Amino acid sequence: MLDIRFEKTTAPKEIPDEDNPLVFGTIFTDHMFLMDYEEGKGWHDARVVPYGPLSLEPSAMVFHYGQEMFEGLKAYKTEDGRILLFRPDKNIERANRTNERLCMPEIPEEDFLAALKAVVKTDEEWIPTKEGTSLYIRPFLIATDPFLGVRPSNTYTFIIILSPVGAYYPEGLDPVKIWIEDEYVRAVKGGIGEAKTGGNYVASMKAQVKAHEAGYSQVLWLDGVERRYIEEVGAMNIFFKIDGKIITPQLNGSILPGVTRDSVIQLCKDWGIPVEERKITIDEIYEAHKNGILEEVFGTGTAAVISPVGQLRWENHIMKVQDGGIGELSQKMYDTITGIQLGKIEDTKNWTVEVK
Amino acid sequence: MLDIRFEKTTAPKEIPDEDNPLVFGTIFTDHMFLMDYEEGKGWHDARVVPYGPLSLEPSAMVFHYGQEMFEGLKAYKTEDGRILLFRPDKNIERANRTNERLCMPEIPEEDFLAALKAVVKTDEEWIPTKEGTSLYIRPFLIATDPFLGVRPSNTYTFIIILSPVGAYYPEGLDPVKIWIEDEYVRAVKGGIGEAKTGGNYVASMKAQVKAHEAGYSQVLWLDGVERRYIEEVGAMNIFFKIDGKIITPQLNGSILPGVTRDSVIQLCKDWGIPVEERKITIDEIYEAHKNGILEEVFGTGTAAVISPVGQLRWENHIMKVQDGGIGELSQKMYDTITGIQLGKIEDTKNWTVEVK
Ligand SMILES: Cc1ncc(COP(=O)(O)O)c(C=O)c1O
Ligand SMILES: Cc1ncc(COP(=O)(O)O)c(C=O)c1O
Repeated sequence: MLDIRFEKTTAPKEIPDEDNPLVFGTIFTDHMFLMDYEEGKGWHDARVVPYGPLSLEPSAMVFHYGQEMFEGLKAYKTEDGRILLFRPDKNIERANRTNERLCMPEIPEEDFLAALKAVVKTDEEWIPTKEGTSLYIRPFLIATDPFLGVRPSNTYTFIIILSPVGAYYPEGLDPVKIWIEDEYVRAVKGGIGEAKTGGNYVASMKAQVKAHEAGYSQVLWLDGVERRYIEEVGAMNIFFKIDGKIITPQLNGSILPGVTRDSVIQLCKDWGIPVEERKITIDEIYEAHKNGILEEVFGTGTAAVISPVGQLRWENHIMKVQDGGIGELSQKMYDTITGIQLGKIEDTKNWTVEVK
Repeated sequence: MLDIRFEKTTAPKEIPDEDNPLVFGTIFTDHMFLMDYEEGKGWHDARVVPYGPLSLEPSAMVFHYGQEMFEGLKAYKTEDGRILLFRPDKNIERANRTNERLCMPEIPEEDFLAALKAVVKTDEEWIPTKEGTSLYIRPFLIATDPFLGVRPSNTYTFIIILSPVGAYYPEGLDPVKIWIEDEYVRAVKGGIGEAKTGGNYVASMKAQVKAHEAGYSQVLWLDGVERRYIEEVGAMNIFFKIDGKIITPQLNGSILPGVTRDSVIQLCKDWGIPVEERKITIDEIYEAHKNGILEEVFGTGTAAVISPVGQLRWENHIMKVQDGGIGELSQKMYDTITGIQLGKIEDTKNWTVEVK
């Protein structure tokens, strides 16, 4: 069992009023978890301490060579007051896959889970309860060697911070408009696209700014080699319903293996809906739309859970989906997953983990 | 003129003894330069202060989304005691191209140069003078918004730190063995390969570790699309001398436009040696080697200036170059560039900038 030292804050902050909308990712709770790593010594000094600034050498490798992993998951408070995490094991697994790709140390799974529980429990009063709200959990790992030169760091710090977040769609599900990018590339096979690390996100910003200026809220990436295969959205995986079948790009090394993606695939199978994980070209989508069989499109990710897509723009083609509205499957998927997360629907798959 | 506040250290460190070899990137001088940026307000609070830790919110965007630019250049002390920078304008230009690609603010060129001069001048006693030594200068820019969510930051800090470095080749030029990577990919057209940013370096670590384990000191990357075209080495551009001609990969968007690369091209032209900047496949190199016309191979970069390559390994082929020794052009190029840097050879191109 991970031995965690606790140092409680002596200056607790005011917990935000849930009736004012919580802007995603701007407010942080009273505590954070930290744990250090040193080559030879391993992980040590696990602690929950007051939330506050990190002190790092200007030469710390994270500032120069991008050795940083992050994850994102949520804690929910159920109506009967229990605290639930949604599939934390999947995030922990993915974190360690990222760590492996970036030559960073593995975090033992039980310790990672113990750390999540410890810090969430410490700040449990911060978990909002209003419909659609939750406590966003951001674990991250950074390289700290004070060294200029390209090689894996020998020292790291693992940190978990918490942020109460409002409903992604305060007025109920709201379809998004998506820009299909054909100039910039996010990631390529053989690269680090399947890792959850800063380099992939900074690479996406320029196209995102361009899409925003054109009135689109998100970018859908094509593959970096042929620029024809659909990859994923900025912070979501993507699903298409074509002629009754669900199709989503296969995990190919350059897209993130989403936890929500995996959950959606499992639910479709349970419901007897055929799902295909495979390569899919933008031309196929365009044809399906032309033939009137592109029935639904939705993104999947921790932040919004399910994001119905009302419009896709590719070159000069604008494809409306569901007449800009919400598809039946998108709605059912959203209701089911959020229902399980909030303990309202029976969790037959053991997806939720209670924090006691 | 940039208005810089100076706060001198009250606890100067001991300047390392030059007779003990200085390990690259491990020792830092007494001062550093900092300057902050805020959207709407612009750059402000330029200052030279004692070298010490940075204090950053755990939610600072640099830890999560990889918005970080860095540069690398050197200051030299000439025999008559002058301080010279080598082509700082090229690093400044490149920094701003990186900033543009990563949606970070431009740093005015004159201010950047004034900052370099101010901090180098402050710590001029730290510039080593022994043959081959220099003061390595590391400017870098990091995103500081305390915000979780993928978009460009609104606040940044620009920092310059200094590190005295020993001779890269204390015993004179020493040929390196290079591993040609055919599994992992560093960057791809449309991505951020030509930017000097952490994401590209962390992406390179796994192949580098693999190469080291096999006894090779550096990785040579192939393009991410066809995996046939030569790109660059981990922290160097690459040149081939084939049948009397110099060939180097053209700037294609996925390789770093090296300052040393540019200098080598200009010198070759001056010397009447034909230079081709073009696409070049690994097969072409293999054939040239087989036909006995692969005369020299060398890498170019700020750290080592010129690195003769004595051996290339591609799949199961081992190609020896110059019988593992140093080519005539590599040696002449090294002597000329370092001669200009140290003020021993007349600088007819105005490459050096004196710090007064
Ligand atoms: C690039 C990218 N793809 C997909 C996802 C969706 O993954 P998950 O469902 O695990 O949140 C995310 C967000 O987490 C992401 O950042
Ligand atoms: C990836 C990469 N390529 C090439 C270079 C060489 O560039 P320069 O000659 O400007 O140092 C460097 C190092 O600076 C580098 O990091």
